[in-house]
Amino acid sequence: MELNGVAELPEIRPGDDIAELVADRAALEPGDVLTVASTIVSKAEGRTADLEDYPVSGRAQEIADRIAELADEEKDPRFAQAVLEESTELLIDTPFLLTETRFGHICVNAGIDRSNVPDHDLLLLPKRPTESAERIRSGLEQRGIEDVAVVVTDTCGRPFRHGQRGVALGWAGMPASRDWRGELDRDGHELGVTVQSVVDELAAAANLVTGEGAGGTPAVVVRGWEFGDHEGSDELFRSVESDFVRQSLRDWRFDK
Amino acid sequence: MELNGVAELPEIRPGDDIAELVADRAALEPGDVLTVASTIVSKAEGRTADLEDYPVSGRAQEIADRIAELADEEKDPRFAQAVLEESTELLIDTPFLLTETRFGHICVNAGIDRSNVPDHDLLLLPKRPTESAERIRSGLEQRGIEDVAVVVTDTCGRPFRHGQRGVALGWAGMPASRDWRGELDRDGHELGVTVQSVVDELAAAANLVTGEGAGGTPAVVVRGWEFGDHEGSDELFRSVESDFVRQSLRDWRFDK
Repeated sequence: MELNGVAELPEIRPGDDIAELVADRAALEPGDVLTVASTIVSKAEGRTADLEDYPVSGRAQEIADRIAELADEEKDPRFAQAVLEESTELLIDTPFLLTETRFGHICVNAGIDRSNVPDHDLLLLPKRPTESAERIRSGLEQRGIEDVAVVVTDTCGRPFRHGQRGVALGWAGMPASRDWRGELDRDGHELGVTVQSVVDELAAAANLVTGEGAGGTPAVVVRGWEFGDHEGSDELFRSVESDFVRQSLRDWRFDK
Repeated sequence: MELNGVAELPEIRPGDDIAELVADRAALEPGDVLTVASTIVSKAEGRTADLEDYPVSGRAQEIADRIAELADEEKDPRFAQAVLEESTELLIDTPFLLTETRFGHICVNAGIDRSNVPDHDLLLLPKRPTESAERIRSGLEQRGIEDVAVVVTDTCGRPFRHGQRGVALGWAGMPASRDWRGELDRDGHELGVTVQSVVDELAAAANLVTGEGAGGTPAVVVRGWEFGDHEGSDELFRSVESDFVRQSLRDWRFDK
């Protein structure tokens, strides 16, 4: 398995066609996986915003006040408002905002980026990253590039372990996970480990190549990896019922 | 960046020298990262056990009864006892056991494997995976193979997202994470994303090559990846103070 960054992508602007920009710079082959950082997908889709676009609701003001009081940190209430508008559920409100985005991903600040936005205050996540991935995949097909899977990626933190790692937000041309249930190990025992989140592993692998900062390469080609002959599933985001951590967060408060 | 499985490793037995077995089969080069699945590290370290080794404490019996009653599932109380003995804290006790292992990793059943153990009931995780990684790294050095980092890996599930992915349990020859704080993006903004858990990303990438089951290759060589000129940190497992999810789980009960 080999991973190579797509070199010399320009700064992406609203309306840019990522499939075209990548196809012009990388000799994609059938079976490749193309990972694309959500930052450039968002930029191409015009998902920038400014703080002044967000008139502050009572809830957003309350959150900002609460963070100021309990965590002793400045939080712009307009930013809290932007996070609320991108979210369907607020899981932690102090000392930071952990929410579920409208497409089911749980992350801090609804994934809104304040560092990576020329001419604007905020870069929102793509609205429907799986549709973004499908669009890029069809764009490649229209250029005669068949059978390339696309994964839209982001980086985020997680419980239990420090640091951020790459995760998948959307995908096309492959299932999200590989199901080994019923398959056997070397000794003929049925496997205990069952569902492997391959899109997340591809995103994590790509993030080692992507890097951050000035030398970043937001698109990466993975070659020589195969999904193989397994069952697949497209469920990546847990439902509340299957997620005890999420249930427990509903009852938790920072100042308890 | 390129990843290749180490081909034709034999079934590992207690006392086997993993450094030697890998060095005989892979032409390792300075700068490579070698990932090794914890299953073979545990086998080499003789970390097998049998259910009859675990006389059942009141606590283990209580857990098994509780799971039977509330989750309607059979849990061998001796298995619950094994999990307790490998753990320092029990975070969820029903419908499954989520614990912190003695070396700080949080996972289901303290990572004890029931599917992958010839001649025994249980395969425990390595006792101190970072020491295991250091031992493998010195073993390579003793064979004249310098400057190879080693990551001991496992797969486990996580909150919020379905499926398992590769994670690091121990590492040697490199820090666990890369710190981008203070570095700048393309536009000269300071980076928002700061600490990248590179050992976890390496473990996830390797798991795409490792696979599970009969064709699995438990050791993988990563070539062409560099840690680069960044600050590093060896904190991988969060402390309770920095982990609100863990705090919230302390108050949560399945039958609430």
